[in-house]
Amino acid sequence: MTPAIIIAPQWIAPVAPQTGVLSGHAVLIEDGAIAGLAPLDELRERRPDALLTPLPGQLLVPGFVNLHTHAAMALLRGVADDLPLNDWLHDRIWPLETRLVSPAFVRDGAMLAACEMLLGGTTCFNDMYFFPDAAIEAASLFGMRSVHGIIVTEFASAYASDAGDYLRKGLELRDRHRGDPMVGFCLAPHAPYTTHDDTLKRVAVLARELGLPIHIHVHETAAEITDSLSRHGKRPLERLAELGIVGPELIAVHAVHVDETDLQRLAAAGATVAHCPHSNLKLASGIAPVARMLELGIRVGIGSDGSASNNRLDLLQEARTATLLAKGASGKAAAWPAEAVLRALTLDAAAALGLDDRIGSIEPGKRADLVAIDLSAAELSPVFDPVSQLIYAAGREHVQHVWIDGRHVVRKRQLADEAANAAVSELVGRTALWHNRTGEILSG
Amino acid sequence: MTPAIIIAPQWIAPVAPQTGVLSGHAVLIEDGAIAGLAPLDELRERRPDALLTPLPGQLLVPGFVNLHTHAAMALLRGVADDLPLNDWLHDRIWPLETRLVSPAFVRDGAMLAACEMLLGGTTCFNDMYFFPDAAIEAASLFGMRSVHGIIVTEFASAYASDAGDYLRKGLELRDRHRGDPMVGFCLAPHAPYTTHDDTLKRVAVLARELGLPIHIHVHETAAEITDSLSRHGKRPLERLAELGIVGPELIAVHAVHVDETDLQRLAAAGATVAHCPHSNLKLASGIAPVARMLELGIRVGIGSDGSASNNRLDLLQEARTATLLAKGASGKAAAWPAEAVLRALTLDAAAALGLDDRIGSIEPGKRADLVAIDLSAAELSPVFDPVSQLIYAAGREHVQHVWIDGRHVVRKRQLADEAANAAVSELVGRTALWHNRTGEILSG
Repeated sequence: MTPAIIIAPQWIAPVAPQTGVLSGHAVLIEDGAIAGLAPLDELRERRPDALLTPLPGQLLVPGFVNLHTHAAMALLRGVADDLPLNDWLHDRIWPLETRLVSPAFVRDGAMLAACEMLLGGTTCFNDMYFFPDAAIEAASLFGMRSVHGIIVTEFASAYASDAGDYLRKGLELRDRHRGDPMVGFCLAPHAPYTTHDDTLKRVAVLARELGLPIHIHVHETAAEITDSLSRHGKRPLERLAELGIVGPELIAVHAVHVDETDLQRLAAAGATVAHCPHSNLKLASGIAPVARMLELGIRVGIGSDGSASNNRLDLLQEARTATLLAKGASGKAAAWPAEAVLRALTLDAAAALGLDDRIGSIEPGKRADLVAIDLSAAELSPVFDPVSQLIYAAGREHVQHVWIDGRHVVRKRQLADEAANAAVSELVGRTALWHNRTGEILSG
Repeated sequence: MTPAIIIAPQWIAPVAPQTGVLSGHAVLIEDGAIAGLAPLDELRERRPDALLTPLPGQLLVPGFVNLHTHAAMALLRGVADDLPLNDWLHDRIWPLETRLVSPAFVRDGAMLAACEMLLGGTTCFNDMYFFPDAAIEAASLFGMRSVHGIIVTEFASAYASDAGDYLRKGLELRDRHRGDPMVGFCLAPHAPYTTHDDTLKRVAVLARELGLPIHIHVHETAAEITDSLSRHGKRPLERLAELGIVGPELIAVHAVHVDETDLQRLAAAGATVAHCPHSNLKLASGIAPVARMLELGIRVGIGSDGSASNNRLDLLQEARTATLLAKGASGKAAAWPAEAVLRALTLDAAAALGLDDRIGSIEPGKRADLVAIDLSAAELSPVFDPVSQLIYAAGREHVQHVWIDGRHVVRKRQLADEAANAAVSELVGRTALWHNRTGEILSG
C-alpha cells in the first residue's frame, strides 16, 4: 500500500460531473484511487499525513485515452511517406508486415509507441494488432492501461490462420488476463471488407454475450463504399447493421465517408466514432464530418492510428487538429469547443471502451489516471482559459507529470521508473536492427 | 570577429542547390557566413583552428522563415477561442486592440512571440502590425532576422491617422534601418477591403520604386469575395491586378477562396502565397487549395498568422498540418512531399521576401541561419528519411540548436544569451499585467 498523496495544481479540469476549471483545489489519491477532490485546505485537514505535491502553474486533467492505434507499427514510422494509399499498403506496409511481424516485433514496436504516448499524456490506449500478448507486455512495462483488440480477419498471418483461429487466440488471451484491472479487450474485426458475414455475425453474438466493445475500421475511403455496393449491394454500415454490429458497443474507426443516413444510423445506435484526423489526411482518405456528428449527438473519441500513417502518437496534437479541422471543414468556428474536445480525449473515449466507471474524469471513486500540464512557459502566456490553452496552444512538451492507477509514472517529463528507462535505452538500440532488417526487405 | 566554427551533425539537408540529405558532412561558419559545406575531414584540414561542434543524431537544416504573423498579438493568445469570425473580430480583437495597442504592448507581445518562434527553429519572421519599431526592438533582443510590414489602412489607430500617415511612418522607419542587414521591410496594405484604390496604386508604385515585396491579406473568407463583387463588381484579386499589385513581389496571405482564374493569375504573375492553415481552420475561413497551387507552380510559403487565431507560433507543426491538409483536401497522398515542404519553410519563403541571396539554404556565401533537430529520441526512431522524419514526426521540442547570422542563439533548447533569458523572465511577469488589463476591458 502506497502512502496517500495530495496533488495541488493551479487548476483542475475534472471533466465530470462538472465542466470548467477549479482553482485552489486539490486531489487526494489513496490506494490508486481518487479519494477526494476538494479545496486544498480541506484535504490537508482531512489527511495531514498525505504527501503534498504542489504544482504551481500547472493544469491537472484526466489521462488521455487513445481510442485507436496499432502500437507495434511504431517500428514502421516513416517507412512509406508521401505515397498514394494503394502503394502505401500494397508495396510497403503489407509486404513488410508479412516478413517482419512476430512477437518480438510487436513487443518492441509497442514499447516504442507506449513510451511516446505516455510521455505525451496518454494513459490508456485501444490497440489493434497481431500478437496482442506482446503489446500487453509493453504496456505493462510502463504501467499503462490498455485495451486490446481480439483481432479477426479471414487472412492468414504469422499470428493466426483464419477467422476462427484469430478469435480462439484472442479469447484465450482474454481469459488469461481476467482479473487484471489494467488490461481490457475489444472484439476487433479488421474491416467490413476483410471479414465475411458469418464471421461478423459471430463477433456480434460474442460482443453481446461477453459485454465487449467492437472496434472496426469502417468507411475509411471512398473506394470502400463503392466496393461494398458492388459486392454486397449495400453500404458497409448498412451491411454491418444487418449483421448486428451497429449498436452502442460499436467503435467505428475513421468514418470519413459517411452520408446523412450513415450518420443517423450511428446516432440512433448510440455508437462511437474513433476520429483519426492525421491519418485520414496523410493517406488522403478525406475529412470526416465531425461537426455534424457532434450535432447529432454521436459520441466521438480521438485516435492516433498507427505510426505508419501518422508518424506521431501525440494525442494533444491530434486533438488540436481535430477541432481545427472540424471548424474549417464545417465553416463553423464555434464547432467542437475546447471543453468538449477535452471530454472526447478522456471521458468519451473511456465510455466507448466501457471504462467510464473507472477512468475518464477526476471524480472520487475513480482510479487516479491524471496528467499535469505546465502552462507557465512563455509560449503559453497569458492564460485566459486553461482548458482552451491546453487544446489550442500547449503541446506534449508541456506534459510534466503523469499518474496511472495512482502510480507516478512520468515525473518532470521523464519516465519515473528506472527499469522502464533502462528498457527504453536498450530498445532504441534494437530499433536500429529493425530499421536495417526493414531496409533489406525493401531493397531486396 | 568570432572564431570560425565547424558544425558536424549526423545529417545535413541543404535544400539548395542539391536536395536530399548529406551524411558525414559539416558546415564551416566564418564571420556569420557559411564558408564551407563539405566532408568533415576536408573542412577540418582546411581550418584546423576552427571550433568543432559535433551533433550526433541531429539533422541540420536552414532556419525556418515565418512568412506571415502579427507577432504582438501573442498577448491576445486564447482571448477569443471558439467564436465565429464575426464575433471574434468585432466583439474581441478590434475593441481590445483599440484600447491596448501601444509601443509597450507591441514590444512585449513581439518579444513573447519571438521567443516562442526562435525556440521552435524560426530564424526570420515577416510581421504585420502597428508600431513596427517596437517589434524590431523585440526581434533584435533575440538576435532574430525580421521583415516588417509598412502597414497601411484607411483607418486611424493609436499608431497612425490615415493611409498617408501609415506610409510616411513606415517609410521613415525603413530609412532609419538602412544598412541593418537583420531588418527588412515589405509594403503591407492590410487587405483589399480596408484600403482604397488610390492607396493601393501608391503602394504598387512604391513597391516598384523601392524594390519591396507587398504583403497583404487576400481572399481569406467567402464574404470578402461577395462583398468585393457587390462593391467593385470584381473579385479582390482582379481589382488588385488592375491596381498593379499582382506581380512577383506579391505575398498573398491566406488565399483560401481562390478559383481557377485566381490561381492562374497568381501563377502567371509569379506571386507567392503565404499559407496559414491553422488560422484558416480555426476561424473557419476554409481550406486553401494548396495542392493545386503547387501543381501550377505557384510559390507557397508557410505562415503562423498571429496568436489570436492560431495560439501556437510553431512552424514545424504548421508545416505538418499544411502538408497533411494538402493531401487530405486534394485526395492525393503524394501531394506536397516532405522535401518540398522543407523548401517552403526555408528557401521559398526567403525568396518571397527577397532574401534568397542571403538565407534559405545551406550554401557557401549565405548567412549562417541554421537549425539542428535531434532525431535520436525514442519517439523519432527509427529514421528512414531524416527530412520526412522532420516534417511528419518531429516537433519544436526536438529543436536543439539555432544559429542566426552565425551567432549561436539557442543552445540545448535554451536561449544562449543571458540578457535575453533575463528579459523573458521579466516579460512573463509583465504578461500577467497585460492579462489583467485585457480582462478589465472585456468585463467592463
